[in-house]
Amino acid sequence: MLIEIGQQRAIIERVSPEIDGGRYAIKRTIGEKIVVEADVFADGHDALEVQALYRKEGDTTWTMVPMELVVNDRWRGEFVLTEMGRHVYTVQAHVDRFKTWHRDLKKRLAVSQDVTVELLIGLELVEHAVQQSAATGEQADSQRLQAFTKQLGNTQNRDEQLRAALNDDLYALMMKHPDLSYSVVYNTELPVFVERERARFSAWYELFPRSTAPERGRHGTFKDLEARLPYIASMGFDIVYLPPIHPIGYQFRKGRNNAVIAQPGDVGSPWAIGSHEGGHKAIHPQLGTLKDFRHLVQVTKEHGMEIALDIAFQCAPDHPYVREHPEWFRRRPDGTIQYAENPPKKYQDIYPFDFETRDWRGLWQELKSVMDYWIEQGVFVFRVDNPHTKSFRFWEWAIADIKERHPEVIFLSEAFTKPKVMYNLAKLGFTQSYTYYTWRNTKYDLTTYLTDLTQTDVCEYFRPNFWPNTPDILHAYLQTGGLPAFKARLIMAATMTANYGMYGPTFELGINVPRELGSEEYLDSEKYQLRHWDLDLPHSLRELIGQVNRIRRENPALQSNNNVIFHNTDNDNIICYSKHTDDFENRIMVVVNLDPFNVQSGWVGPNIVGLGLNWAEPYYVHDLLTDASYLWRGDVWNYVELHPQRTPAHIFRI
Amino acid sequence: MLIEIGQQRAIIERVSPEIDGGRYAIKRTIGEKIVVEADVFADGHDALEVQALYRKEGDTTWTMVPMELVVNDRWRGEFVLTEMGRHVYTVQAHVDRFKTWHRDLKKRLAVSQDVTVELLIGLELVEHAVQQSAATGEQADSQRLQAFTKQLGNTQNRDEQLRAALNDDLYALMMKHPDLSYSVVYNTELPVFVERERARFSAWYELFPRSTAPERGRHGTFKDLEARLPYIASMGFDIVYLPPIHPIGYQFRKGRNNAVIAQPGDVGSPWAIGSHEGGHKAIHPQLGTLKDFRHLVQVTKEHGMEIALDIAFQCAPDHPYVREHPEWFRRRPDGTIQYAENPPKKYQDIYPFDFETRDWRGLWQELKSVMDYWIEQGVFVFRVDNPHTKSFRFWEWAIADIKERHPEVIFLSEAFTKPKVMYNLAKLGFTQSYTYYTWRNTKYDLTTYLTDLTQTDVCEYFRPNFWPNTPDILHAYLQTGGLPAFKARLIMAATMTANYGMYGPTFELGINVPRELGSEEYLDSEKYQLRHWDLDLPHSLRELIGQVNRIRRENPALQSNNNVIFHNTDNDNIICYSKHTDDFENRIMVVVNLDPFNVQSGWVGPNIVGLGLNWAEPYYVHDLLTDASYLWRGDVWNYVELHPQRTPAHIFRI
Repeated sequence: MLIEIGQQRAIIERVSPEIDGGRYAIKRTIGEKIVVEADVFADGHDALEVQALYRKEGDTTWTMVPMELVVNDRWRGEFVLTEMGRHVYTVQAHVDRFKTWHRDLKKRLAVSQDVTVELLIGLELVEHAVQQSAATGEQADSQRLQAFTKQLGNTQNRDEQLRAALNDDLYALMMKHPDLSYSVVYNTELPVFVERERARFSAWYELFPRSTAPERGRHGTFKDLEARLPYIASMGFDIVYLPPIHPIGYQFRKGRNNAVIAQPGDVGSPWAIGSHEGGHKAIHPQLGTLKDFRHLVQVTKEHGMEIALDIAFQCAPDHPYVREHPEWFRRRPDGTIQYAENPPKKYQDIYPFDFETRDWRGLWQELKSVMDYWIEQGVFVFRVDNPHTKSFRFWEWAIADIKERHPEVIFLSEAFTKPKVMYNLAKLGFTQSYTYYTWRNTKYDLTTYLTDLTQTDVCEYFRPNFWPNTPDILHAYLQTGGLPAFKARLIMAATMTANYGMYGPTFELGINVPRELGSEEYLDSEKYQLRHWDLDLPHSLRELIGQVNRIRRENPALQSNNNVIFHNTDNDNIICYSKHTDDFENRIMVVVNLDPFNVQSGWVGPNIVGLGLNWAEPYYVHDLLTDASYLWRGDVWNYVELHPQRTPAHIFRI
Repeated sequence: MLIEIGQQRAIIERVSPEIDGGRYAIKRTIGEKIVVEADVFADGHDALEVQALYRKEGDTTWTMVPMELVVNDRWRGEFVLTEMGRHVYTVQAHVDRFKTWHRDLKKRLAVSQDVTVELLIGLELVEHAVQQSAATGEQADSQRLQAFTKQLGNTQNRDEQLRAALNDDLYALMMKHPDLSYSVVYNTELPVFVERERARFSAWYELFPRSTAPERGRHGTFKDLEARLPYIASMGFDIVYLPPIHPIGYQFRKGRNNAVIAQPGDVGSPWAIGSHEGGHKAIHPQLGTLKDFRHLVQVTKEHGMEIALDIAFQCAPDHPYVREHPEWFRRRPDGTIQYAENPPKKYQDIYPFDFETRDWRGLWQELKSVMDYWIEQGVFVFRVDNPHTKSFRFWEWAIADIKERHPEVIFLSEAFTKPKVMYNLAKLGFTQSYTYYTWRNTKYDLTTYLTDLTQTDVCEYFRPNFWPNTPDILHAYLQTGGLPAFKARLIMAATMTANYGMYGPTFELGINVPRELGSEEYLDSEKYQLRHWDLDLPHSLRELIGQVNRIRRENPALQSNNNVIFHNTDNDNIICYSKHTDDFENRIMVVVNLDPFNVQSGWVGPNIVGLGLNWAEPYYVHDLLTDASYLWRGDVWNYVELHPQRTPAHIFRI
C-alpha cells in the first residue's frame, strides 16, 4: 500500500450525487443548483474544514465552496454552474489546527484556565498564515494577518492578546488561508454535464408533416407545415417534433393500418427509412427539398420554437446502406439479410444494423455523421427511436462526441422498456426520456411513479418527459374517457414534469378510436396513411393547452421537478400534488379528478410544512384556470369538487 | 472515449456486495458463503449469460460461477472461499448467441415456422464451439460437440436435426464453452478478506492478571493467571483478554478511583504505559518475565483458548519513547510535551503520539513492530484501545501489512464513538468491533440497533462484538437491576451476535456498585488498584455462563449473524428474536424479559414464514436452559411468562 502523505487524517466517504461511483455524469442546466454532500470525519476530536471543489473539465484550477456540517458527520455545500458542457466536482477536507485552537481556547477561557502557552500556539499558527498568504501573492491579507500577530504576541497586554485571538476578522482570514498541507481530496472527480434550459423545461408537439396539407388527400409538405406553425406556437409549444422525413422504402412497404401488403398509392411508414431516393441524410421528395427544410427550421425559430428530428437507426430493404455496406447487416446462411424479428414475429420491411459487425468503427462513424449532418442543417433536438435496440456503447460514444462540440443538442430517448435499461440510457447521455406515464392512470400508480422519478438518485440523471399519447400509444383511458380524460392527462403531464409532449392534432381533437378493441394503435393511423384534420372543431382543446403552457411559463415551480409533494385526499379519484421553488416564492398545487365520468368531491389535507405554510394561518389558493380564489385553512382539510365535463382539475397558485 | 471492442453489448451495474466502490474489502471466514448480485442487461432482446468470477489476489486465473436471473434484470450467484487471505471477485456477462438461438427456435417450432435456415445458423454456432473447445484442449467435449454437428447438419433428416438442436447435453456443452469474444467484465475487482472461524464466532473473557493472586493484597502474576485458566475454560470462553501487561509509568501516576495524585504503593493504570522499566515491548516486572508470558500463552492454548493483548498506543511521560523519539510527540512553545487533553479536561499522565509528525514513517514502523513483536511471542489476537484517536491511514496500512503475513490475526476495535467512525475502522481492516450494545437496553433500541448491524451493508464488513460490561462501563441497568439484569444482558449478548465478551470476574459475581451516582465507573476499579475476588460465591453466574457458551457451540445458528429475525410480542418488556442456518436445520429462538424487577408475561407471534415453518402445523420449542418443551401453534400467538429471579429468558431450539 503506497501512502505518500502519512499525516493526512481526514476521511471522505459517500459523496453525493454520485452515479455508479462517478462512472456517469449527473445532469444540470445553466443556473441550476448542485448540492454536494459527503460523510467527512477524522481521528480524534480536532475540528475539520470541508470544501466542495468544482471546475470545467480540462481546467486546472478548482473553485472552492465551503461545506457545512449537517448532522452525524454529514457535510453539505452547494454551487451553481453557469456554462454549458462537462464539469467535475469533488470534496476536499482537512483537520484545521486554527479552528481547533479557536474552539478550545473558548472552552479554556470559560473555566478560567491559564492560556499563556495556548496564545503562543495561536501566534505560531497565524505567523504561518502570514507567510503562506504572502507566498500566494495575497499581500493585503498577509498584512492584516501580520497586524494580528503583533497583538497576539503582545505578552505585556493579555486583554489585547485575547481580543485578537477571538477577533472575527482574524477567524475569517484564517479560514480564507487554511493550511492545506495535509488536506485530503476524495478519490474520484465526479462529472456533471451542464445543458441549456430547454433540456430541463420544454413542451413538445409531434405531428406528421405529410398530414398538414390544407386540402384533403394531398401529401403535405414543409411549406404546408410552415403555415401550421402559428397554430402550434399559439398553443405555447417549444419543440416541433417530426417523425422521420427521409425517403420511405418500397420493398415490403406496409399498407394502411399496418397491412402486410401495401396497395398502390400507400405512403408507407416514415420509420421504414431508405430507398433509391436516398437514406438517413436525404429528404423524402414529397415533403420538399433540403432548402425547404432549412427554411422551415428558420421560420420555426422565428416563432420561438425549434424543430426536432427523429433518429431511427434502421433500414428498409432498399436503403442505399444495404447495397453499399452489406457488412453492417447480419447475413443468414442462405445468403439473405437478417430482417428484424421478435420470434415468432417477423418484420421483413426492416433491416436492423448488426452492432456486432467487424466494421463497428465504420458503422459508428456513419451513424454519428447522420446526426452531425442534421446539426449542420440547424437541428439541435433529436428524438431517438428505440435506442435500447442499438448498442449502448455506441450511444455513449456518439452523444459524448456530439455534446463535446455541441453541448446545446438535446437527445430524447424513446425507449419503452425495462426500467434499468431506460435509466441506463439516461446515464449514457440522453438528455430526456419517455416514461411509463402513458400507462400510469391511478392515484397510486402516479404517486409511486413520480416519487421514484423525483425523490431518488434517478432524478440526478433521468429527465422524464411525460406524454399522454404518441402515434404508437392510445391508452384505453383515453379511448373510453373521452375529452375529460384528455384534459386530465394533459394537465398532469404538463404539471407533474417540466418536460412533456403530445402527439397532435389527434390530441387536441380528442381522437380516440383504436384500430381494434384491446389495441393501443390508432385506427387509420398516420403512421401508414395521410390524414386530414379539421383544426377548428369546437371541442378542440387548443385553448386549454395554450392556457396550461402559459401557466407553465409564468410559474418557475413548474419548470423543474424539484420539490414535488403529494398531499392527502380522502378520495382515490382525486389526486393532489404541488411543486414550489426552493424559496417558496412560487407555489403551485394541482388537484385532478381522475374519474372522467363522474363528479368527484372530497377533502384535501395539504402538507402544510412542506409548502412552507403556517398551520395557524389561512391562505388563498387561486385557480389559474378559472381565476377563482378560495380561502383554505392550514389546520383543517379543505373541500374540492371537480366536474369532468368542465375542467376536471384545479391548478392553484398559493 | 477509448473503446476497444465495440461489439461488447452487456452492461453490468450495481454489483453487491461492494463497499465504497470496492475501496474496502468485505469480510468472510473460511467456508462462509458470498452471494454476489448485479444488474445485468443488454440492448435488444438477446439472451444473456452472467458469471461471478473470483480468485485469490495475485492469482491469474478466475474461477467462474454461473449467476441466475432473479427478477428485474437482477442476477445472483454464490460461492465459498476455503483459504485465508485477500481474494477478489467480479462479474462477467455476454450476449449468448446459442442461448438466444435455442430460446427462439422453441418459439418458432411452437407456431410451426419453417426453421431450415435457423438450423443452419445453429450448426454454425456449434461448429464454432467444436473448434474453440479443441483449441482450449478439451478434446472430449470437442468430440461430443462434433457428433452433434453431424446430426444438426443432416438436412436429409429433419427429425434428427431437431432432436440434436433441442438436446439437453448439447445445451449444457454449449453453456460450458461459451463464446466470450465480446464478454464484458465489471469495471472493478472487489476485495474480500477471508479469516479464520474465530473472527466470526468467539467468546471473550477480560480480566486483570494483577488481581488473580489467590491471597488478598498480593500483586497477581502470570503464574497466578495460569492457575485461573481452568476456571475460565470451564465457562466455555475462547479468548482470554488481558489489559496492557507493560511497565506502568510513575510520573503523574493516577491513584485509586482515578485520584489525580497517587499514594505510595498505588499500582497505577495499565493503560499509562512505559517507565524506566520499558515500553510497549516490555512486561511489567510484577507480572513476570517474558518466559512466564510465553508459558502462559502455551498453557492457554492447551485449554483450547488463546491470549488477547491490549494495544494502547499512548505513553506515560516516563516511557522510553519520550526520551528516544521526542519527534513523535507534539512540543508546545514553552518546550513541554503536549499531554492528552479534551479541553478543558487535561490528562497529564498520558502523552499521545503526534501522527502529524514529519517522521510519520518511523513512528508507523515502530508501532507496527510492537504488534509484530507480540505475534512472535505467540499472540494472534489484539484488542486495540481507542483506535479512533490514532491515524486511520496508519491502521489501514499496519493491519493490511500484518494480515498479509498473518491472516489469522484478529484485531478488535475498542472505539466507542460516532457510528461512521466505528464503521470506517471496520472497513480499514479491524476484524471485530465493540458496539453500543452496552447502552441499548430497551426492546426498541435493541431491535433497531441489531437490525442496522445485520440487515444493511454494514454486516459485510463490521463484525459486532457485544459486551454487557467493560472495566470502563458499568451501565445503570446493571447497577440497578442486580443479577436478573446481568443474566438478561449475558444471554442477549451471547445470542444476538456471534462474537461477545465480558469483563470478569466482576460480571459473573454481579459486581455493580458505581464510583458515584450517575457514573459508569466501578467503585474501587481494578483499573487503578488490585482487587481480590471470591469466585465461589453462591450467586456466581459461572454455571449459567458455561451453559450459554455450550449452547452457542452446539448450535450453528448462533455462530454467525445471518438470518436474525425479530418476532412480535405484545409486551414491551419481552423481546423475542431468532437465528437460523440457511437450510433451517438449526433454529434458535430467544425470548427475554427485559424487566429485572417483575414477572412479565405476554404473547409471542413468531414470523412463521421467516422461520421456515408451516402455519398449519404445531411445532415444539425446547428450552435449552431448562430442558422444558412447549408445543406452539403456527396459526396463533403463544404464551410466555418469565421470572427475573429465575432465568429471565428462554433459549428455544425449534
